[in-house]
Amino acid sequence: MTQPPPSIVVLAGGVGAARFLEGLVQVLDPRRITVVSNSADDDEFFGLHVSPDIDTVIYALAGLADPQQGWGLAGDTFHCLEALARLGYDTWFRLGDRDLATHVHRTMLLRQGRTLSDATASIASALGLTVRILPMTDDPVRTFVRTPSGEFPFQEYFVRRRFADPVEAIRFQGVETATPAPGVLEEIARARYVILAPSNPIVSIGPILAVPGIRQALRAAKARVAAISPIVGGATIKGPADRMLAGLGIDVSPRGVAALYADFLDLMVIDAVDTPAAPSIRELGMQVAVTDTVMRGPAEKAALAAATLRALEV
Amino acid sequence: MTQPPPSIVVLAGGVGAARFLEGLVQVLDPRRITVVSNSADDDEFFGLHVSPDIDTVIYALAGLADPQQGWGLAGDTFHCLEALARLGYDTWFRLGDRDLATHVHRTMLLRQGRTLSDATASIASALGLTVRILPMTDDPVRTFVRTPSGEFPFQEYFVRRRFADPVEAIRFQGVETATPAPGVLEEIARARYVILAPSNPIVSIGPILAVPGIRQALRAAKARVAAISPIVGGATIKGPADRMLAGLGIDVSPRGVAALYADFLDLMVIDAVDTPAAPSIRELGMQVAVTDTVMRGPAEKAALAAATLRALEV
Repeated sequence: MTQPPPSIVVLAGGVGAARFLEGLVQVLDPRRITVVSNSADDDEFFGLHVSPDIDTVIYALAGLADPQQGWGLAGDTFHCLEALARLGYDTWFRLGDRDLATHVHRTMLLRQGRTLSDATASIASALGLTVRILPMTDDPVRTFVRTPSGEFPFQEYFVRRRFADPVEAIRFQGVETATPAPGVLEEIARARYVILAPSNPIVSIGPILAVPGIRQALRAAKARVAAISPIVGGATIKGPADRMLAGLGIDVSPRGVAALYADFLDLMVIDAVDTPAAPSIRELGMQVAVTDTVMRGPAEKAALAAATLRALEV
Repeated sequence: MTQPPPSIVVLAGGVGAARFLEGLVQVLDPRRITVVSNSADDDEFFGLHVSPDIDTVIYALAGLADPQQGWGLAGDTFHCLEALARLGYDTWFRLGDRDLATHVHRTMLLRQGRTLSDATASIASALGLTVRILPMTDDPVRTFVRTPSGEFPFQEYFVRRRFADPVEAIRFQGVETATPAPGVLEEIARARYVILAPSNPIVSIGPILAVPGIRQALRAAKARVAAISPIVGGATIKGPADRMLAGLGIDVSPRGVAALYADFLDLMVIDAVDTPAAPSIRELGMQVAVTDTVMRGPAEKAALAAATLRALEV
């Protein structure tokens, strides 16, 4: 029996992670890659269990993602949603007809007593993926965002209210009693590298690190651990990470992000525009790699993945 | 407080009943009509509770039915179903994207502990109906069809196997312990007329009559009770009623159908082509009305409804 080759573990949120992974599978055998996905942005809509971050990554790696909006399936229609509106439902969470099949399938499996890991593996396999996708946990963990207008479930803050509210606090309901999904700690322990994708450090990477055991596993891992800054030139490419960091009193910079990971991070990958920040990040006790981190197309995605791997090899 | 006007109760299956009801609402205030629908052809697909006969009637009365196929919504798409096929599901039961919303809604209500009556009323009201639609029961009753190839749930026999199997026996699982849905016995008791739509006497009207209490209520009703023969010239317009009657050893004729209802029926409405059968039906102790029962368009539907009401007035 041959030993499985050393694996790469990627901690992932949604769109930023999906783009990075689209690059990584160009430069690495996908079978060596294990994705540990945030599942704290999961929610139930119309009685269906929706896992937005997991699906964003799966759809992207299957080549089915909508390239414009970053969520959902390219060319999807919204006929069921329109009919649900006619039945009186709020339809701010945009579930396409083809996308619905994923949630119908996942919901059936969960109701049959299967785990979120099982459902995720089933969907990934049906769509032809060889990358292994693991949710951070099979237990229900849900992100809530506290704002001056009240506390909202993550999707309500993010989609319905278009992340316009100032963020006062974040809470991961249920995380204290959650356990890492099967394989998560094992993959981290045997990984050659662990990479934190350029995802929101608060609500994408944050929940993963908050699952008891995962942060400790990263500290103890023999793997070198890298993170790619989702903050470029003082702002995010997409999403509310910059406002969230500011709202929580965290420096909106690659250094601010790096400091959140300082206890286990070996390498921070930052954009060339943030070169001046490199010395202050090194002061946190980690290496810094500078490259172009803005992924406009396939070539930039592959280049970022290759640059990250090169920096990790050093 | 004014007394509610005398009501008309229609016992209904799927397509034949929908056509008849499209005529009845042209000649009668829809608010006077109560439909008692077969729910024994309900089934679960993809974790969703589907009520084919109820929906066929609702969609038809809402003007949304597909005029060709007789089931589903006009102009519906099947993108979710195609995606479910990609996930490995059998998709012989054709659920359109807009149609799915109905089942998603019904399933949510049922999971919240609401009844099939509640769900039916909610859907009918959202689609603008003023006709009252009641399922025969809120309890789960399921039709099974025994054939030489084995026993099948009704939809599998009907849709998947295209009612090609000889029928040896019919069984309504759960009917012994079912109770009529709220309002069913009351509406029959206070009805001016009860009309059995031109539906399959075995698997559409049969389950309704098999719910304990309903047949007794029809026998005891002060209303005059009519049935419209679904058998015309020795065959059915649509569906397997003729083969089923033959398989069960029942005369494939208006008289064969009338005999099934002889204990409570006052009037049998038959097609002009079956005029020679009239005397033998009268021998069963009921009146016979002869008219054109084949409903090709709106005018024929209204004419059949009007002729039935006229014959009941006598």
